[in-house]
Amino acid sequence: MRFVSDNAAAAHPRVIESIVESNRLDTAYDGDEWSKRLDAAFSDLFETEVRAFWVTTGTAANCLALAALCPPYRGIFCHREAHIETDEAGAPGFFTGGAKLILLDGPGAKIDANLVTAGCERIWKDVHQVQPAAISITNATEYGRAYRAAEVAELGRLAKERGFGLHMDGARLANALATTGESPADATWRAGVHSLSFGFIKNGGLNAEALILFRTELADEIAVRRKRAGHLLSKGRMLAAQILAMLEDDLWLENARVANSAAQKLASAAPQRLVYPVEANEVFFRVTAEESATLRAQGFDFYDWRAGEIRLVTSWDQQGEALERLAAAIAAL
Amino acid sequence: MRFVSDNAAAAHPRVIESIVESNRLDTAYDGDEWSKRLDAAFSDLFETEVRAFWVTTGTAANCLALAALCPPYRGIFCHREAHIETDEAGAPGFFTGGAKLILLDGPGAKIDANLVTAGCERIWKDVHQVQPAAISITNATEYGRAYRAAEVAELGRLAKERGFGLHMDGARLANALATTGESPADATWRAGVHSLSFGFIKNGGLNAEALILFRTELADEIAVRRKRAGHLLSKGRMLAAQILAMLEDDLWLENARVANSAAQKLASAAPQRLVYPVEANEVFFRVTAEESATLRAQGFDFYDWRAGEIRLVTSWDQQGEALERLAAAIAAL
Amino acid sequence: MRFVSDNAAAAHPRVIESIVESNRLDTAYDGDEWSKRLDAAFSDLFETEVRAFWVTTGTAANCLALAALCPPYRGIFCHREAHIETDEAGAPGFFTGGAKLILLDGPGAKIDANLVTAGCERIWKDVHQVQPAAISITNATEYGRAYRAAEVAELGRLAKERGFGLHMDGARLANALATTGESPADATWRAGVHSLSFGFIKNGGLNAEALILFRTELADEIAVRRKRAGHLLSKGRMLAAQILAMLEDDLWLENARVANSAAQKLASAAPQRLVYPVEANEVFFRVTAEESATLRAQGFDFYDWRAGEIRLVTSWDQQGEALERLAAAIAAL
Amino acid sequence: MRFVSDNAAAAHPRVIESIVESNRLDTAYDGDEWSKRLDAAFSDLFETEVRAFWVTTGTAANCLALAALCPPYRGIFCHREAHIETDEAGAPGFFTGGAKLILLDGPGAKIDANLVTAGCERIWKDVHQVQPAAISITNATEYGRAYRAAEVAELGRLAKERGFGLHMDGARLANALATTGESPADATWRAGVHSLSFGFIKNGGLNAEALILFRTELADEIAVRRKRAGHLLSKGRMLAAQILAMLEDDLWLENARVANSAAQKLASAAPQRLVYPVEANEVFFRVTAEESATLRAQGFDFYDWRAGEIRLVTSWDQQGEALERLAAAIAAL
Repeated sequence: MRFVSDNAAAAHPRVIESIVESNRLDTAYDGDEWSKRLDAAFSDLFETEVRAFWVTTGTAANCLALAALCPPYRGIFCHREAHIETDEAGAPGFFTGGAKLILLDGPGAKIDANLVTAGCERIWKDVHQVQPAAISITNATEYGRAYRAAEVAELGRLAKERGFGLHMDGARLANALATTGESPADATWRAGVHSLSFGFIKNGGLNAEALILFRTELADEIAVRRKRAGHLLSKGRMLAAQILAMLEDDLWLENARVANSAAQKLASAAPQRLVYPVEANEVFFRVTAEESATLRAQGFDFYDWRAGEIRLVTSWDQQGEALERLAAAIAAL
Repeated sequence: MRFVSDNAAAAHPRVIESIVESNRLDTAYDGDEWSKRLDAAFSDLFETEVRAFWVTTGTAANCLALAALCPPYRGIFCHREAHIETDEAGAPGFFTGGAKLILLDGPGAKIDANLVTAGCERIWKDVHQVQPAAISITNATEYGRAYRAAEVAELGRLAKERGFGLHMDGARLANALATTGESPADATWRAGVHSLSFGFIKNGGLNAEALILFRTELADEIAVRRKRAGHLLSKGRMLAAQILAMLEDDLWLENARVANSAAQKLASAAPQRLVYPVEANEVFFRVTAEESATLRAQGFDFYDWRAGEIRLVTSWDQQGEALERLAAAIAAL
Repeated sequence: MRFVSDNAAAAHPRVIESIVESNRLDTAYDGDEWSKRLDAAFSDLFETEVRAFWVTTGTAANCLALAALCPPYRGIFCHREAHIETDEAGAPGFFTGGAKLILLDGPGAKIDANLVTAGCERIWKDVHQVQPAAISITNATEYGRAYRAAEVAELGRLAKERGFGLHMDGARLANALATTGESPADATWRAGVHSLSFGFIKNGGLNAEALILFRTELADEIAVRRKRAGHLLSKGRMLAAQILAMLEDDLWLENARVANSAAQKLASAAPQRLVYPVEANEVFFRVTAEESATLRAQGFDFYDWRAGEIRLVTSWDQQGEALERLAAAIAAL
Repeated sequence: MRFVSDNAAAAHPRVIESIVESNRLDTAYDGDEWSKRLDAAFSDLFETEVRAFWVTTGTAANCLALAALCPPYRGIFCHREAHIETDEAGAPGFFTGGAKLILLDGPGAKIDANLVTAGCERIWKDVHQVQPAAISITNATEYGRAYRAAEVAELGRLAKERGFGLHMDGARLANALATTGESPADATWRAGVHSLSFGFIKNGGLNAEALILFRTELADEIAVRRKRAGHLLSKGRMLAAQILAMLEDDLWLENARVANSAAQKLASAAPQRLVYPVEANEVFFRVTAEESATLRAQGFDFYDWRAGEIRLVTSWDQQGEALERLAAAIAAL
C-alpha cells in the first residue's frame, strides 16, 4: 500500500475520458481547440487575464518560469529544501544558464519576507557576488505547509520593492487552497506572484501541468523556451484536455479535498507524533526505526525522511480500507 | 482534409487502450513495470543489448542524445535542412551548452561520407575553429528519402575512424524501414549508429518517443540529463505503455506501411511532378501557385514548401475517401 | 618576415611606458584612476556619453556584447566569414547560452540591409525556427573592406525597425577609419550601432581592447558578465593605461595609417592580383601555389587563404626594408 | 595605506622587465618561445610532466579547470566561503554549464575528507539529486589557512575512491608553501590534485596566472575552452614572460616569504585578537567597530569582515614604514 508519493497514483477517470475525447485529428502543437481554451479557462479561474501553457512536468514548469524571471548571471531565493534545489537534478541551472539558487532556511520549508531581506543583506552589492533577481516559493511546501495569501503578499511587496520576480511552485497548490479556502486569485497574483506552476499530475492528472503567467508579457518568451527545451508536444490537445477536465466542476479542488482529508485522518491517528501541522496531503511523523519497520512489515510503503521521521503522502484516490488500516497501524505504534 | 503533417493525426486505438490499462498505481518515474520492460523490448527488436528511454518529443530525444555525444565546445555535422537545425528552436544549442551545428548540403536532405569528409577538410585544425565531434542524420529525411543500411554504414565507418558520435533522428524511421525492408539492426547499430531517436508519435503514438542507446555506457548520463531537462515524467508508465503497444505485433511497421502506401497513391497521381522519389510518407510536388490554390479551395490543407513546391504528408490513419479525392485532385491539376 | 597577422606585432613603446607608469598601488579591478578615466575618454572621442570596459581579447569584447544584445533563444545575423563564426571557437554560443549565428553571404565579408532583410524573410515566424534579435558586422571586414557610415546607417535603420541590436566588431576599426576619414561617431552610434568592440591589440596595444556601449543602460549587465566570464582583471589599471596611451594624440589613428600605408604599398606592387580593394591593412592576392612557395622561400610568412589566394597583413610597425622587399618580391612574381 | 588586498599591489620590477623583453614580434597566441617554455618550466618545478596554460585571472583558471573536471549535470564540493562560491559572480555556473557547488562548512574555510564524505551521504543516489563529481579546495584558504600535504592527500584518496576530480585554487599557494615548507609536488599531484590554479598576480605578477594540469590528458580540452571563453590572448608571450620571471630564482617563493613575514609582524602585534592562525599573508583580527574606526582614522585601509572582525592582507612589497606603523597601531588598540 503506497504512501510514498501522490505522483504515483492513477489518473482520474475523467482525465482519461478527456484524453480519449480529444484523440482526433486537429492542428499540431498548441494550435488545437483544447489548447486554445486554456488561456480563457485559467483567466476565469484567476479572475484576471493570464496566459497558460501546458507542460508535462513540474520541473519544466518551474524552470521555464525561472528562466524568464532571472537572467543567467543572477540568483533566485528559495528554501534550502525547495524542490527546485533538492529534487530537480540541477534543472534550474540548466534552464537559466547557470543562475544561482540562494538558499534560505525556515521552518517547514516556508520562507518569509524577513528571511529574504536578511538574505539580501548578506550579499555585498558588487560584481563579485551574485545579486538576486527572483524569489521562488512552494505552496504547499515540501513539508505540507500552506502559505496564507497574506504571507505571500508580504513576499510580493518585497519583490516589488526590489524589482524581483516572484514564482510559486504550486505542485500542490490545490491542496493548499483546499485547506486555506482562499481563492486562486488571492493566493497568487493579488499577492504579487508573477508566475505559477499549477500542478495537476499529483492531483489526478496524467501528464499535464500548467504554467500560468500573470505577467502576460512573458508569454512569447515562454513559448519559445518551451519549444527549445523539447517541451512543445505535437499532440498537445491531449494535455490541454486533461487540464480542462481537471478545471471542470472544480475537480482539481475536489480531488485535493479528498487527499487532504485522508492526510487529516492519518494525522489524527497520532497527533503527538506530528512534525508539522498538516495543511495539505503530506504527513510527517516522528517514529523510531523500529516503528518504521513495523509499518513496513504491514505492507505500507513510504519515505524515511530525516532521522526519526517518516513522510506519508495521500492521493486523490485514497479513501478506503488501506487508509483506515494505516491510520490504525500508526495509532497502534 | 489535413495533409500538413503526420504529427497532427490521432493516436492509434491500441495506444489509447494501453494507456488506459497502465492507469493504475505503480512506482513513479520509470520504476514501474511498463518502463522496466522497454530495454528488453527494444533489445529484442534490435537484436542486441540496448538501453531505451521514453521522452515526449523528438526534439528531446534528439537533443539529449546529441548532448551526450558532443561536448559544448565541439560541433555536429548535419544537413542544412535537418530538423535539429531548422525546426527545434535552437534546442541543440540549449541541450549541448552551445555546440555548433556544422551544416552540409546534399540532395533530399541526405548527407553522405564524402560530404562529411569534405566538411572536415574545410575546418582548420586549431583551437580557433570549432572541431566536429558528431554526425546526425535523419532517416527518413525531411524530404522523405530513406537511407539504405549501406549508406549509413559508410557514415558509420567514417565516424569510427574519426572518433565521432553518430546519431540518427528516426522520427520517421518506421516509414524508412517499411520502404527499405531492412531490419532495425542493420539500419542502425550494425551500420555504426550510436544513438537513435525512434519516433512513434507521428506514427500512431500519443506522446511517447523512444531514445535508444546502442552505446549503453551513456545510459546513466542520459538518465540524469533527461531529469535535468524536465523530461522525467512521474507517471512514465503511460508513456512506456504506448511504446509497448506500438511494438506489439509490429504495429509500428504496420502503421508506417499504411502511411507509405497512402503517399505512393498520391505520388502515382502525378509522378511527373515529384521533386524527390517517395520513400516514406512525404510527397513533394512541383505545382504553381494557382494549382496550390486550387487544391486548397477543394479543402485540402498542406504546406507550401520552397517556391513552386508543396509538401503533403500522410498518416497511419489516412486510407479512405479523403486520400482518393486528393489523388484525383492532383491528377486533375 | 612575418605578414601572418597584425596580432603578432610588438606593442607600441608608448603603450609599454603607460603600463610601467601605472604600475603602482591602486584600487583593484576597475576602481583605479586609469580605469575611471575610460568612460570620459571615449565619450570625448565619440562625442556622446558612452560606457567603456577594458577586456583582454576581441573575442571577449564581441561575445560579452552579443550576450547583452541577444537572448539565448534567438539569433544573430553575421557574415559567413565573420570572426565570431569562424575564429572564436564557438565563443558566441558559450557567452550567449546557445544563441544561433544566422549566416549571410556577401562579397568581401560585408553584409548590407538587403541581405539581412532577405535573411529575415527566409525564417518562418513561429516558435520552431530561431528568430533573429541582433546583427553583427565587422569593420574593417575579415577581407579588409571598410564600411562607410552610410552603409552602417542602413543596417542601423533596419535594426531599429525590427528591434534588433546592432554590434560592430571593430578589431580593425582604426584601419577602417583611417581609410574612410569618417569620425568615430559617424561610423558607429550615429549610424545606429549599439555596442562596439574597439580593437587596440592589433594596432599597437599589448593586451587591452575596449568594449564600448552606446546603449549605456547595458553597462551594469556587462560589468557582471565580464566578471562572470573571468575577464575582470585585478590590476585593470595596466589595461586602462594601455588604452589611454593609444587614445592620446590619436596614436590609434596614427598607427592605423602606418599599417594601411604599408598595405597600399604591397597592393600597388601587383594591383592586378588583388582579390578585394585594399581599405585597411589586409591584402589578398591571387597567386599560384608556385608563386606562394616562391615568396615563402624568400623568407616571407603569411596565410594561404582560399585556393589560389594569399593573405598579407601589415602592422603599425612595418615600414622599412622587409616591406620594400616583399613589395618587390610580389612585383617580381 | 592599503591592506585591503594583495591584488592591488604593483607588479614586481622583474615581471615588468620580462614583459618589456618579450615585446617583440613572435608567433601569436601561445605559439611563441616564452609560452612554449611553460610546460617545461612547471614540469621542473613540480618534478613531473605537467601542462601549463597562462590565463589572466584566477576566476578563469579555476573555472576552466572545474569545467574540465565536472560535467554540467553534476556537482563540486567546496567550502561555503570558497572564492568560487562567494567572489566569482557565478562563474563556475557559467563555465561548467550549470554544475552545482555543493557547500561544506569547516573552520577557517578548510574542508577535509570527513566533511566531504558526510556531504556525499546527505545526497540520495538517484537522478533527482545532483551527484558530486569533483572537489575544489583553496590553498591557502580564504582565511589564510594552509593545507598540509597530508591533509590534501586524504582528500586525494577520497577523490580517487569515488572517481572525483580534485582541484586546488592556489591563488595564494606560494604563501601556503612558504609557510609549510613543503614542495610544490608534495602539496599537489603527489597528494592527488588533478588541476591547480597557480596564482602569481597577488604575489607580484601583473596579469598572468597559470593553470596547471597534472592530468595532462585534459590539455586539449582546456586549450579549446580557454579560447572559447575569450581567454586566448594574441600576445600571450607577455603573459608567459611574467610567469617565467616569477619562476626564475624562485621569485614566487621569495615574494611570498616577504608577504608572510609582514603578516606575522601584524599578527604578533596582537596575537590575542587573532581569529585564525596566520599561515599565509592574511590576518583576521577581532576588533570592535570603534577600534576599526580608529585604525581607519590613521589612514589604514582594509575590509571589515564578519561582525567584529577585520581582514588585513599584506603584499610582496610591504616591508617598510607603513607596516611598522600598522603593527604599532594594532598593538595600541
